Amino acid sequence: MTTSTDNKMEKIVALCKRRGFVFQGTDIYGGLRGAWDLGPLGVALNNRIKSEWWKMFVEGREDMYGLDAAILMNAKVWEASGHVAGFVDPLVEDTETSERFRADHLLKDNGIDAEGMSLEMIDATILERGIKSPKGNPLSKARTFNMMFETRIGATAGPEGQVYLRPETAQGIFVNFKNVVDSMSPKLPFGIGQIGKAFRNEIAPREFLFRVREFEQMEIEYFVRESEWQEQFEAWRLAIWQWFDHLGLSRENIQEFEVPENDLAHYSKRTIDFEYNYPGKGFDELAGFAYRTDFDLQAHAKASGQSMEYVEGDGTKLVPHVLEPSFGVGRALTAVLCESYREDEVNGEVRTYLALPTHLAPYRACVSPLLKNKPELVEKARGVFMLLKKEFGNIAWDDNGNVGKRYRRQDEIGTPYCIVIDFDTLGENPDLLDTVTIRHRDTGEQERVAISELVSRLK
Amino acid sequence: MTTSTDNKMEKIVALCKRRGFVFQGTDIYGGLRGAWDLGPLGVALNNRIKSEWWKMFVEGREDMYGLDAAILMNAKVWEASGHVAGFVDPLVEDTETSERFRADHLLKDNGIDAEGMSLEMIDATILERGIKSPKGNPLSKARTFNMMFETRIGATAGPEGQVYLRPETAQGIFVNFKNVVDSMSPKLPFGIGQIGKAFRNEIAPREFLFRVREFEQMEIEYFVRESEWQEQFEAWRLAIWQWFDHLGLSRENIQEFEVPENDLAHYSKRTIDFEYNYPGKGFDELAGFAYRTDFDLQAHAKASGQSMEYVEGDGTKLVPHVLEPSFGVGRALTAVLCESYREDEVNGEVRTYLALPTHLAPYRACVSPLLKNKPELVEKARGVFMLLKKEFGNIAWDDNGNVGKRYRRQDEIGTPYCIVIDFDTLGENPDLLDTVTIRHRDTGEQERVAISELVSRLK
Repeated sequence: MTTSTDNKMEKIVALCKRRGFVFQGTDIYGGLRGAWDLGPLGVALNNRIKSEWWKMFVEGREDMYGLDAAILMNAKVWEASGHVAGFVDPLVEDTETSERFRADHLLKDNGIDAEGMSLEMIDATILERGIKSPKGNPLSKARTFNMMFETRIGATAGPEGQVYLRPETAQGIFVNFKNVVDSMSPKLPFGIGQIGKAFRNEIAPREFLFRVREFEQMEIEYFVRESEWQEQFEAWRLAIWQWFDHLGLSRENIQEFEVPENDLAHYSKRTIDFEYNYPGKGFDELAGFAYRTDFDLQAHAKASGQSMEYVEGDGTKLVPHVLEPSFGVGRALTAVLCESYREDEVNGEVRTYLALPTHLAPYRACVSPLLKNKPELVEKARGVFMLLKKEFGNIAWDDNGNVGKRYRRQDEIGTPYCIVIDFDTLGENPDLLDTVTIRHRDTGEQERVAISELVSRLK
Repeated sequence: MTTSTDNKMEKIVALCKRRGFVFQGTDIYGGLRGAWDLGPLGVALNNRIKSEWWKMFVEGREDMYGLDAAILMNAKVWEASGHVAGFVDPLVEDTETSERFRADHLLKDNGIDAEGMSLEMIDATILERGIKSPKGNPLSKARTFNMMFETRIGATAGPEGQVYLRPETAQGIFVNFKNVVDSMSPKLPFGIGQIGKAFRNEIAPREFLFRVREFEQMEIEYFVRESEWQEQFEAWRLAIWQWFDHLGLSRENIQEFEVPENDLAHYSKRTIDFEYNYPGKGFDELAGFAYRTDFDLQAHAKASGQSMEYVEGDGTKLVPHVLEPSFGVGRALTAVLCESYREDEVNGEVRTYLALPTHLAPYRACVSPLLKNKPELVEKARGVFMLLKKEFGNIAWDDNGNVGKRYRRQDEIGTPYCIVIDFDTLGENPDLLDTVTIRHRDTGEQERVAISELVSRLK
């Protein structure tokens, strides 16, 4: 049975709340727009995505170094990077209600692409087309709105107390470039990887984990000689595809969008957006990959007065160029959920399951006794449970209701294997002594396996 | 050779910077007080502390559920929790220079304990004792200063845009209590564990990872029936000691400080601070453990209008009471570094090493060829390296300088085992074919082990 894509996203969001993956942030107080909390299963899935990424791109490679820079940085970072001046959206106000809107969104609703327009051009377009606020009132002139959250550090009132919540983790890497070079003596080309929270004060946060105000990034800044950027760009492009494979995303649901030259950020000579085909939404950003030249290191060298030069083995000095593969954790989580959400029909009833890869599933297996009121079954099942929990950690125990209901519950949260201990396990059929039933999530098929072989079968 | 405790902390801080554990935040721009960045080895050690904690207290237990709530929450959370009104420090200003100081710190410098003093009492004491600012100038009257960082969400100017950076992760758990109960159907007693960043606008951030403005917490809220709190308190107290054992901290370096009844927070009926004996500093906080009664759930029930009742199997309804074991990741990291920092004498030279437990060390082992200019040695060593890297992940490769220097480098970053491939490995001595030298960090002892046994020996 195919799943209608019309409401697939709504079904996923509902499943996420019902089964403890994702909750609206602070929902008991009416929520906070653009913030989401991960429940017990969401944090398990999220942690696995992050640790698999770290294994693939940091720990698993000899040319990569990890970093965890602070969210609060000296404000000079954001002046040098251009964010104070340039990380802005155009904003207009409803002159009656004082509600504020993204001017480019209002223009887009009227069929106009505001990309690259100055404030004056936006004002002129609004006037010319007679564009009103969604409530039908006149609009104010457009002004810029910086998307960085501001806060103050210390108790003084002066400008020295002004800081920002980082809008990207990347700059934390650039300002630590010399620290990593000095402490680790890496050889070019090499990269620095980081996972961490970033914040953007979106005027119009969108549904679920798209365009949120607080999000987690997995970012790499890969430092290369200018002459080798194209070769390394191609190698990383392929590595990014391998990551999507590892997440279990089908290649037909992903496309590369080559950002046209005239739309490139001023520091970039080439940028690819990797887009996923989210149900009911279409292709939208999953990850980005930019060649940032030496823009950032040069900008920080100039602003800080510190050298950002790398010294080659032969004494040549250079400021490396940078490739930036950048991944949103929430986007990856959403794509994995969308990709794995399935419905089929079992005994005339709709069965919902998440076909998650085993290395991502919150629980690798669920163990249960056939009946919970038979102490000998429970005791045997507990032994199997402890054996597997010691080996894998993420093993569930479920003795509620009948076996069929347990299967449905585990299907819905993507547990690949359900293991049931029955009277044959205890030797009622002597041929089956110390064997258990393994039931497979995606096919519903069952097989009989010896307890002694369970660990290797589940690997 | 014993290490002088006078400058041990300075040595550790210097090692942390030199070898890529911890850097001052944004140091190329003169730093940001109270913020620190973790370098490649610091993030490795930190990640291990966090994942071991998660395994011990969340994944490893059947009564625990994980959570990852957002840093930005609806401001009503902090009104209900009492932080908006009560999370304050008393502040005085130098009337000449406008510099601001913690009034309680100035009083402490003059031998006066300001604990529990009202602002009026502080003013009276300053007047009476003639206390001046550190520059000798008169002080302003004391006022309260809220330690929560404030920011604004959205583009509107009204009070609805006011939010705070969370000063603790705990409230993210309380506001998700019902979500976890509804989605996971846990049985009392049960707990929710969370690891995440929190922020406090300390007026006087102190050296290194003590009293920082941005820090990471590992917190548990454990929900119990009121009648069982003492029994569960004792069980958790022992579990906390086991955690310190697992970090490799000696019990003689840790003490429990039972907070006296008249110093308890208004919501707590019992609180223990676990203190570590930091070198050159003495006993200071490492972790906290509080019985918070039902204060938080009741406060949120009242403020949100949502029920925080738990329904027992027999239909009994109750608002659970809460035990809170709370750990600072930075404090744990610091204690582990202090505990493991050692100096001894080898061939008349001081040798510095970190006696880190194997399960925490950034690298489990380092592999190197005896000589880097012998391709047959390098090739063989690469094979051993790849074998171990596939099994463990965190394996270092080092072919720089002579073997003695490599040992010193690995000692300093706490690598438990150095593995050297030499000509005997290749069969120069046929009896030693396919064996390698394992050199042990703490003792400097060396032994010969077959490559086929390496994986099991390193486990």
